[in-house]
Amino acid sequence: MKLHILGCYAATPSLMGNPTAQILEIRDHLFLIDCGEGTQVQLRKHKIKFSRINHIFISHLHGDHFFGLPGLIATFQLLGREKELHIYGPSGLKEVLLMLLRVGNSWTSFTIHFHELTEKDPIVIFEDTKVTVSTIPLSHRVYTNGFLFREKPKERVLNTEAVATYKIDKAYFKNIKKGKDVILENGEAISNTLLTLDPPAPKSYAYCSDTAYHPQISEWIKGVDVLYHEATFLTSEAHLAAKTKHSTAEEAAKVAKAAAVKLLILGHFSIRYKKKDAFLKEAVPYFSNVQLAEDGKLLTF
Amino acid sequence: MKLHILGCYAATPSLMGNPTAQILEIRDHLFLIDCGEGTQVQLRKHKIKFSRINHIFISHLHGDHFFGLPGLIATFQLLGREKELHIYGPSGLKEVLLMLLRVGNSWTSFTIHFHELTEKDPIVIFEDTKVTVSTIPLSHRVYTNGFLFREKPKERVLNTEAVATYKIDKAYFKNIKKGKDVILENGEAISNTLLTLDPPAPKSYAYCSDTAYHPQISEWIKGVDVLYHEATFLTSEAHLAAKTKHSTAEEAAKVAKAAAVKLLILGHFSIRYKKKDAFLKEAVPYFSNVQLAEDGKLLTF
Repeated sequence: MKLHILGCYAATPSLMGNPTAQILEIRDHLFLIDCGEGTQVQLRKHKIKFSRINHIFISHLHGDHFFGLPGLIATFQLLGREKELHIYGPSGLKEVLLMLLRVGNSWTSFTIHFHELTEKDPIVIFEDTKVTVSTIPLSHRVYTNGFLFREKPKERVLNTEAVATYKIDKAYFKNIKKGKDVILENGEAISNTLLTLDPPAPKSYAYCSDTAYHPQISEWIKGVDVLYHEATFLTSEAHLAAKTKHSTAEEAAKVAKAAAVKLLILGHFSIRYKKKDAFLKEAVPYFSNVQLAEDGKLLTF
Repeated sequence: MKLHILGCYAATPSLMGNPTAQILEIRDHLFLIDCGEGTQVQLRKHKIKFSRINHIFISHLHGDHFFGLPGLIATFQLLGREKELHIYGPSGLKEVLLMLLRVGNSWTSFTIHFHELTEKDPIVIFEDTKVTVSTIPLSHRVYTNGFLFREKPKERVLNTEAVATYKIDKAYFKNIKKGKDVILENGEAISNTLLTLDPPAPKSYAYCSDTAYHPQISEWIKGVDVLYHEATFLTSEAHLAAKTKHSTAEEAAKVAKAAAVKLLILGHFSIRYKKKDAFLKEAVPYFSNVQLAEDGKLLTF
């Protein structure tokens, strides 16, 4: 699983950096999470193939999280895209995007499936054989969801020495990897545990932006490998965090601690802070394994 | 008059450059002409004060000419803007911008005056004591206007030596600058031409993007100082220009020649062309005083 942070700043594009957008690479999928203005250029800069993006997840309808989407769709069209595109986001997104196409007398030659969200409890919004994606209801000024990405367990790993020892025919391998025991022709049963090794543990990633401090989040994301949690403000601006329904670094760290995640990434920084060390400093007393997001940062886990 | 080109590329933001946006500084006004994605960052990069922009002119509703506008309005709000904002553009623009505010549960604390355009003939859309702005109907796939900016004649320049010679009291200066003659107390009339010098000639700027070759443009912009005309394609792609209702460099030069403008600036280049010398080469045989637009280029005239 790879996380490519394309933009991690709040509210407005600036010379400091880009508004929110991320690419999560997970089991052959390239999921785009939020799409602030300028995301297209970030995708090009980091050589991410537009054609590999088939699923876009929009947390909420504030401009710094989706004003790059209309242009991205126009560019997909320009590039001759034919593949279907799935867009997950709050109700209203479809109406906006269709209106933008209509006033420009434009259309898409590819089908867009809009998955409009209105639920207030976590639900599964995407599932295939390898991955599930669920919503994480957040607490913001407008209807907002975070997203929880979970790999499904991988197949068991064939113990090549063991199958050689037992002289097991290749025809059985598919079932063995699925965890089944083998019954030899002489009737002897060989337990799967003798023939396979544990696969790597499935990974999980929780994306939580934008939100006020919302302790319930930690119940929904218990034990995830990586949590990206917004930290728009420092404690000195806690009154602004409360007023605008954002979080401080300390609050983000408390969610990470309560959820017992492995790694916390802080992002969605207000551009009022020219240096970001203080975010780390304020988070570490509550949760030690914390990193700061940076535009262009690529994390592999 | 100063023209600051913020973006001069067609269709899509890319690593080559920005989609269309320009700032025209004319007699204390800072007019924003088109506003492709990324315009905000270009404004910041070139240290153009957001608070000085009170009039925005949108040629048409293709994304590369206005997808930066919703974010710019959001940023005006974030910066605490109180001054009224005037937006001139095709009918539909108001509906789109209001819907984007509505889905984000957002609003503006400043008044936006939408001047929606539907006319097919040139009309004056802005006028004050110093400047007029008119539409230039263009020929594109959707309803599109170019814009013609004309300074009004400045006051006549006082000939300080002459007024001293005639011992004319300061109380007359205001009227003299307005072109009036002076009647001395002895009844002698002194012609204004003896007391003043010609002011600098009023400047004019015509912005024409996007459009197919449209010879009628030259009648509307006769003798302007500067013409920005789109040249999306080279002659080798004339079939694409015809199909998409854009112009070639040669066609832009023909319009400049027929209009007898002083300077032609070519822009709105397709990003398929990695080098731009050929645009100059194809234009010069038809019109010699031609320059190529560049992102960030500042012209004073």
